[in-house]
Amino acid sequence: MRYRATVAYDGTAYRGFQRQANTPHTVQAVLETALSHIGVESPSIIGAGRTDAGVHATGQVVAFDMTWPHAIGSLDRALNANLPDDVVVSDVREADERFHPRYSAVSRKYVYRVYVAEKPHPLRRLYAWYHARPLDVPAMQAASSVLAGSHDFTSFGSPPAGTNAVRTVSEARWEENGDDLHFAIRANAFLYRMVRSIVGTLVVVGQGRMTGSEFAGILAACNRSLAAPSAPPQGLTLVEVQYVDE
Amino acid sequence: MRYRATVAYDGTAYRGFQRQANTPHTVQAVLETALSHIGVESPSIIGAGRTDAGVHATGQVVAFDMTWPHAIGSLDRALNANLPDDVVVSDVREADERFHPRYSAVSRKYVYRVYVAEKPHPLRRLYAWYHARPLDVPAMQAASSVLAGSHDFTSFGSPPAGTNAVRTVSEARWEENGDDLHFAIRANAFLYRMVRSIVGTLVVVGQGRMTGSEFAGILAACNRSLAAPSAPPQGLTLVEVQYVDE
Repeated sequence: MRYRATVAYDGTAYRGFQRQANTPHTVQAVLETALSHIGVESPSIIGAGRTDAGVHATGQVVAFDMTWPHAIGSLDRALNANLPDDVVVSDVREADERFHPRYSAVSRKYVYRVYVAEKPHPLRRLYAWYHARPLDVPAMQAASSVLAGSHDFTSFGSPPAGTNAVRTVSEARWEENGDDLHFAIRANAFLYRMVRSIVGTLVVVGQGRMTGSEFAGILAACNRSLAAPSAPPQGLTLVEVQYVDE
Repeated sequence: MRYRATVAYDGTAYRGFQRQANTPHTVQAVLETALSHIGVESPSIIGAGRTDAGVHATGQVVAFDMTWPHAIGSLDRALNANLPDDVVVSDVREADERFHPRYSAVSRKYVYRVYVAEKPHPLRRLYAWYHARPLDVPAMQAASSVLAGSHDFTSFGSPPAGTNAVRTVSEARWEENGDDLHFAIRANAFLYRMVRSIVGTLVVVGQGRMTGSEFAGILAACNRSLAAPSAPPQGLTLVEVQYVDE
């Protein structure tokens, strides 16, 4: 039987979602270890998004195959009892055998958090990107408007080998709440590093060192070397993955 | 010359504020190490509040004596350059030689954070107390109203040896923001464990297992054995210390 589940994690201690040789510190590895502790012999977890080292999730979606002879409601408790407290599974349910977290997904939503303050804030340092100087949020929002729609996002990330870089962005919005800035972006799928690359470049706009039309020009140029350095990982959270049946 | 400074810290990695034999993991120790790195020979930091292991601060106030031959504005940069990123100094200024962060303080304010959700949240686990079941916040707020004023708080904490347990609370208020609950409490001073003991007992009220008048009875009884177990440290933050000249 195939199951799907939502996974939230604090990415601080992990080398990213995806299992890697030579380190047990990936989210996939701790999930598979939890499955093996509840009796799955060769556990294999598939995730919707391969988040990088230090990137967080509140709405990662995973699938795995197992036989669970008890009530479904007890499966998430059994998994959570075998997980460290920086990884939490919820909403475990039976899924169609064809359900694939990545291929079945129709959209993903990420949030990137930035905060602006005179001094860095120790309680935010693991979950947001600190800036000492004010950012022009209306300018960042205006520049973001060119992201909506289908574009070749080569300037902001790398597609898997042999595939194209066209992605369809359905939402790209900055929100300002005091000194807290959130950038929410939804797309059918994302290139590797795409959100962090876009945010890194939009922040240059917010600093007044790039105009909105220069930002639009970078998108149009399809040239990876034109983007600003990527924003650091700790500000990024995978918040939602949508499927066609939802 | 005596200086004062505001200190923010993530208490997660520390055994509390106060220096202890046999561990370098106190906030006081890392501050004194930073002072020694910028040339203070026998650095001695005095703090306004001796926060426990795991307790955070955004508004701790400290004082120290040193000779700083440069512009005052460069002293916090010099200190922060020698501090780990979970401790940040700000607002460094010259202080009267009689200024003492603890004795000169006229009030302290703490915030205790609780959140209620179906599952624990990995990104909040270090900064709030998780509850799976709803809490009756209006009942907790109503029960809190007896805290205001001067009372013997023996039921909720221990005074230093040879002193009394009378403290004057000027603010005690719950705020609810979605699934996020904040308890803000201000007093002239606090007993050891007082905020966590009060919160631990108020949550029992919120769970419907104690009435507001039973809570008032515990306060009036001056009997430390009547309080519920203390709330865990990670929900607590020292947010402000006030002085008479401010």
